Amino acid sequence: MTNSIMTQAVGEFIGTLILVLLGDGVVAGVSLNKSKAKDAGWIAIALGWGLAVTLGVYAASFLGPAHLNPAVTVGFAVIGQFPWSGVLPFIIAQMLGAFIGAVLVWLHYYPHWAATQDEAAILGTFATGPAIRSPLANLFSEFLGTIMLVFVLLAFTKGKWTAGLNPMGVGALITAIGFSLGGTTGYAINPARDLGPRIAHAVLPIANKGGSDWGYSWVPVIGPLLGGIVGAWLFTLI
Amino acid sequence: MTNSIMTQAVGEFIGTLILVLLGDGVVAGVSLNKSKAKDAGWIAIALGWGLAVTLGVYAASFLGPAHLNPAVTVGFAVIGQFPWSGVLPFIIAQMLGAFIGAVLVWLHYYPHWAATQDEAAILGTFATGPAIRSPLANLFSEFLGTIMLVFVLLAFTKGKWTAGLNPMGVGALITAIGFSLGGTTGYAINPARDLGPRIAHAVLPIANKGGSDWGYSWVPVIGPLLGGIVGAWLFTLI
Amino acid sequence: MTNSIMTQAVGEFIGTLILVLLGDGVVAGVSLNKSKAKDAGWIAIALGWGLAVTLGVYAASFLGPAHLNPAVTVGFAVIGQFPWSGVLPFIIAQMLGAFIGAVLVWLHYYPHWAATQDEAAILGTFATGPAIRSPLANLFSEFLGTIMLVFVLLAFTKGKWTAGLNPMGVGALITAIGFSLGGTTGYAINPARDLGPRIAHAVLPIANKGGSDWGYSWVPVIGPLLGGIVGAWLFTLI
Amino acid sequence: MTNSIMTQAVGEFIGTLILVLLGDGVVAGVSLNKSKAKDAGWIAIALGWGLAVTLGVYAASFLGPAHLNPAVTVGFAVIGQFPWSGVLPFIIAQMLGAFIGAVLVWLHYYPHWAATQDEAAILGTFATGPAIRSPLANLFSEFLGTIMLVFVLLAFTKGKWTAGLNPMGVGALITAIGFSLGGTTGYAINPARDLGPRIAHAVLPIANKGGSDWGYSWVPVIGPLLGGIVGAWLFTLI
Repeated sequence: MTNSIMTQAVGEFIGTLILVLLGDGVVAGVSLNKSKAKDAGWIAIALGWGLAVTLGVYAASFLGPAHLNPAVTVGFAVIGQFPWSGVLPFIIAQMLGAFIGAVLVWLHYYPHWAATQDEAAILGTFATGPAIRSPLANLFSEFLGTIMLVFVLLAFTKGKWTAGLNPMGVGALITAIGFSLGGTTGYAINPARDLGPRIAHAVLPIANKGGSDWGYSWVPVIGPLLGGIVGAWLFTLI
Repeated sequence: MTNSIMTQAVGEFIGTLILVLLGDGVVAGVSLNKSKAKDAGWIAIALGWGLAVTLGVYAASFLGPAHLNPAVTVGFAVIGQFPWSGVLPFIIAQMLGAFIGAVLVWLHYYPHWAATQDEAAILGTFATGPAIRSPLANLFSEFLGTIMLVFVLLAFTKGKWTAGLNPMGVGALITAIGFSLGGTTGYAINPARDLGPRIAHAVLPIANKGGSDWGYSWVPVIGPLLGGIVGAWLFTLI
Repeated sequence: MTNSIMTQAVGEFIGTLILVLLGDGVVAGVSLNKSKAKDAGWIAIALGWGLAVTLGVYAASFLGPAHLNPAVTVGFAVIGQFPWSGVLPFIIAQMLGAFIGAVLVWLHYYPHWAATQDEAAILGTFATGPAIRSPLANLFSEFLGTIMLVFVLLAFTKGKWTAGLNPMGVGALITAIGFSLGGTTGYAINPARDLGPRIAHAVLPIANKGGSDWGYSWVPVIGPLLGGIVGAWLFTLI
Repeated sequence: MTNSIMTQAVGEFIGTLILVLLGDGVVAGVSLNKSKAKDAGWIAIALGWGLAVTLGVYAASFLGPAHLNPAVTVGFAVIGQFPWSGVLPFIIAQMLGAFIGAVLVWLHYYPHWAATQDEAAILGTFATGPAIRSPLANLFSEFLGTIMLVFVLLAFTKGKWTAGLNPMGVGALITAIGFSLGGTTGYAINPARDLGPRIAHAVLPIANKGGSDWGYSWVPVIGPLLGGIVGAWLFTLI
């Protein structure tokens, strides 16, 4: 990794933008009225989000390490696999990328917001929410999902995986977490992926939108950050 | 790439023929009455189109660069990754391949057209159309989808991707765009893929067919061409 | 390929057995009453058949070339990529493997046949049938599907594909043909895959079974054989 | 394999924990009330279980051979590919991992158990059960499925598969068995995967739970063990 932190942060910006554009995009496609992908269901969401992360990682990986997730950046920093000096620039780039990605989802599906009279579906395109509202259980879901993410990401680095397949492996991991652990909170497992688009939802003049559920917004930030740290720490334990 | 432009154009013809035969084929399978794949839905379409492009790229890649898309050819020419002298032969080959591919879809599903009393479903097998008709928004959708396509294709060339996996990566990219950005206009993101089969729809004696919606036909041509140029230009910017 | 034709034929037997056990198995799982996979639909069938072929090829490929299909064997022989002396042993091994594979499907789903009062569903587990009965159109479907299969298989051998991925590529090809061209006749594209299990259906004491539709049985034999020859010949043309 | 049996057993513990957490997790997501993945169906289960095994194998493979299944361990020992001295430590580690994985599924979906008034769905999240109760037929299903698993796993070791793709291949195999042979008994094909979570179901204070169906519990233990031995023996025969 000979690129400067600044160049790497550009990679984080681009990769997270693509991740959110394609990731929130598949939720929009499945949820918004008149969309051709309407009601394609959870399989489409799990596969679509996995591919979104794969492609975000590819697009970022020629510029930097392609974390695209503050929980990964912080977790890796805690165990010394990433310099602390890079943490703030990375998180800023990830948040900006996630915000711009969400703006592009809004523009891409522009006529569909007016056709959708469902505030929850519109918010759900941008940010995650709990299937059953229960802060402690929801926090545990995000915590466990992110432990999984960071632990297996670190296992990949030790494995005999062909280098060029790494982005595919990361996508498979995201799809697996979606299928298996996503049913409870919609698997944010990434503070930028949730908070960036939630801010976009709050500030953009989206037709038919309701509130941005700020009361829940701390769960998909704190849960993933704790999970990233504990997941990285568990891995070094072994 | 030691093959002549002529040999490479043969590759474009074969690859685009396969791309449209399998791509329009999956839409026919999912849409036409009495088809065994009827109502398999958007997941089948997104996976089927991704595989169609993967296999078209494989079949073309031993003869040439396997663009199979005028938007890719023009975008690559603009940034100097493809000679301008090859652009016209490639576009002609791509258009011819797309046209013949659509003729084969018609023959393959021959008894099913008479069994289908839905002009929109029949046209939809050949050409894309908007979920909500709104020229500017539709143009933006095709523009953004093709930026995505060309930008990530160029990122692949810089990546550590194993060479033999490139066609798989391209297919994954097409599937991702289908899941995430396809809900609005059906993701032509390729002028030949849309215009070639639309001409076939207009000239073939297809049972139960209606008009070919020429009023919309410029959108999936102009949008992708602009997106290809801007996507390639954005990539060189970084 | 230093193994004797006899050893290679053992590979054909094992591979085709696995191909039919898993391939007819997924149709049984989706079609038979009380099965947990009941109504999983065409996506399950297309993915399941693709994986069936991938795994059959893997299991056969350490013993021989893993054709698992008389249309491939004959097509390759016609263009000189396989010795004519091996054709008969291979076809016998493929037919035997397909027959035994079908017997195992019958045993595996043993209590489910009695629970299924649908003769067409039971026959459909073993052999293909037309969505719309029209011999010429059905023949063309099987012919075109097998051209596709053999042409792209030959393109794989010229491509830069990583060797170890070949079985995955073949599976992707089968899945693509299933999604895109399978809606008309159920894509036999392999005489052994259709005739072997049809014989099993005729001779086994399957509960609730009806006739074996011998009137149609020549279509998925002749169509694929012609397609294999023409597909191989078209490839050498280029 | 220079790691000690103890270190390798830690790998078995971690890998089987992940396998059950993600595998039982997808069943919970698809089955439990109010889950966002509710009714995603058999395709989600087959893909989710395949990915669960892929990721379990990755996470375990830097510590040991990643069997994650007593049927594989015993089968490999019988044909001399694994030392008998490692069998008991491996099985204990696999059972412990499966138990802890099931506890984590319970915690992850904590509020969803109280929302689900279906004892069979709750037990089905933890342990397999027959679609049609018929001990001999069910035993044969588990026996045949595990022959398939162990035979093809051994074929992988002889194949030209890229090393880093092995976990992907294993996942594809599990998905294929799920699609094609899973409809009858839910494809335990792994005594630890079934018995460990069944014990967890019995001892945990899960809301709305009923009995643990101990009358059936021997089938997914004995069937896979016999299948593992016969599958390994059949492979050496060739």
